[in-house]
Amino acid sequence: MKVTVLGSSSALPTSERYPSAHVLNAHERFFLIDCGEGTQMQMRKNKIRFGKINHIFISHLHGDHVFGLYGLLSTFSLMGRKSPLHLFAPENFQSILKSHLIDFDIHLSYDIDFVPLSGKNPLQILNNKYITVTSFPLKHRIPAFGFIFREKLTDRNIKKESIVKFQIPVVRIPAIKKGEDFVTSEGIIIKNDDITLPPPEPLSYAYCSDTKYFKKLSSFVKGVSLLYHEATFDGTKEELAKVTGHSTTLDAAKIALEAEAGGLLIGHFSARYKDISYLVNEAKTIFPRTFAAIDGKSFDVGNIDNA
Amino acid sequence: MKVTVLGSSSALPTSERYPSAHVLNAHERFFLIDCGEGTQMQMRKNKIRFGKINHIFISHLHGDHVFGLYGLLSTFSLMGRKSPLHLFAPENFQSILKSHLIDFDIHLSYDIDFVPLSGKNPLQILNNKYITVTSFPLKHRIPAFGFIFREKLTDRNIKKESIVKFQIPVVRIPAIKKGEDFVTSEGIIIKNDDITLPPPEPLSYAYCSDTKYFKKLSSFVKGVSLLYHEATFDGTKEELAKVTGHSTTLDAAKIALEAEAGGLLIGHFSARYKDISYLVNEAKTIFPRTFAAIDGKSFDVGNIDNA
Repeated sequence: MKVTVLGSSSALPTSERYPSAHVLNAHERFFLIDCGEGTQMQMRKNKIRFGKINHIFISHLHGDHVFGLYGLLSTFSLMGRKSPLHLFAPENFQSILKSHLIDFDIHLSYDIDFVPLSGKNPLQILNNKYITVTSFPLKHRIPAFGFIFREKLTDRNIKKESIVKFQIPVVRIPAIKKGEDFVTSEGIIIKNDDITLPPPEPLSYAYCSDTKYFKKLSSFVKGVSLLYHEATFDGTKEELAKVTGHSTTLDAAKIALEAEAGGLLIGHFSARYKDISYLVNEAKTIFPRTFAAIDGKSFDVGNIDNA
Repeated sequence: MKVTVLGSSSALPTSERYPSAHVLNAHERFFLIDCGEGTQMQMRKNKIRFGKINHIFISHLHGDHVFGLYGLLSTFSLMGRKSPLHLFAPENFQSILKSHLIDFDIHLSYDIDFVPLSGKNPLQILNNKYITVTSFPLKHRIPAFGFIFREKLTDRNIKKESIVKFQIPVVRIPAIKKGEDFVTSEGIIIKNDDITLPPPEPLSYAYCSDTKYFKKLSSFVKGVSLLYHEATFDGTKEELAKVTGHSTTLDAAKIALEAEAGGLLIGHFSARYKDISYLVNEAKTIFPRTFAAIDGKSFDVGNIDNA
């Protein structure tokens, strides 16, 4: 799992920081999370293929998280897309999008499978062979949702030398990968542990933006491999953060600490901060494994140091 | 007068070419013409101050000419803008914008003075101390409008040495600048031509996008100093251009020739063209003073060679 930051600004973009958008690559399946203005240009710059995007997740309906969507949907269509697009967004966006397509006389070349987000509890919104995605409520000025992407536990890996040594027939391999022991033609039981290796630990990536600090949030992302959490303000702006429904660097770090996250990625920086290293260092006082979201930078979800 | 290109792509932006947007600087008054996705980021990159923009002109309601407007309007508001914004756009955009602001619960900090564009004839839509702007119909798949910005003829310049020589009282100077002769205290008539110099030739800039070729267009932009004309396709794609309501390089050059334009700027290039020098050379076979719109490049309207 690898996440690429396409935009790290808050509401006011700067010349270096575009509005929010992340692309998560999970086993060469690409998930676009938020779609601020300019996302399609950032995708091109970062060589993310448009045809690879089948799922888009919109956290909430503030412009800096969604105004790139209209252009991207049109571009998909101009490129002749046929495969349906799965769009997860706050429920009221369905009618807004419908009106938009009518207003601009846009006839998309593909279907949109709209999945409405609502409610006050975590909800599994996607479940396929490789991954599950759960949405959960954030606390912002308007309904807002976070997302956690979890890899599924894959099969155990059978040791090649065991296949030869115990003459394991091909037909038995799938069951052994699922954890079954092997019984030889002489009736000897070979323990699964002796002929297989455990699969890699499943990774997970959580996206929390926009939100103010609330303790329960850490339970929604408990044990996540990499937590992205907004940090619009520095630690001295706690009051401003509360009033505007945002977080400080310290809020983000507290959530990472409470959730026992593997790493913390902060972003959604206010345009007032030219140099964001100060923000990172501030978060590190609480949660040392903190990194800054930077436009165009990719992070290894399982090992954020590999940025 | 100076025009800065913020976007030169057609519907599909590339990593180098953003969708349509031009900024015309006329005597330090800034006019934004079209507002494709990413315009606000391009403005920042090109150091165009947001507070300087009081007039926005939208040629037509295709996304690549307007999808940057929503973000820009929000940004103006977040920056605390108070002065009204004059927005010139096809008439049906008024209700679309109204719905958009309601849908996203946006309360702008400033008023929008909406000027609807419609009709089949040129119409003067702005007239202030320095400039007039006239809209005229284009021929595209949907209602589309071009714009011509004309400097006003300024007063004649009085020669400093004449003031001394003929002892011209200060109170007489405004009338002399308007062209009156001067009568000395001895009753001698001094011809205006002898004591003044003519003002600089007023410049004009025309923006024509999107449109297919139609002969009458050249009459709308007759004698313009610098013509921007879309050239989505190369000269071999005449049929495709007609069907899609666009122009080829040769169409654009023909309009420039027929209009006796001072220079031609082509843009709105299809994403299929990586190297646009071929397109410029093609147009030059008909109209030698042709230049390519390139993102971030500025052109002197009175002397396009000064790019």
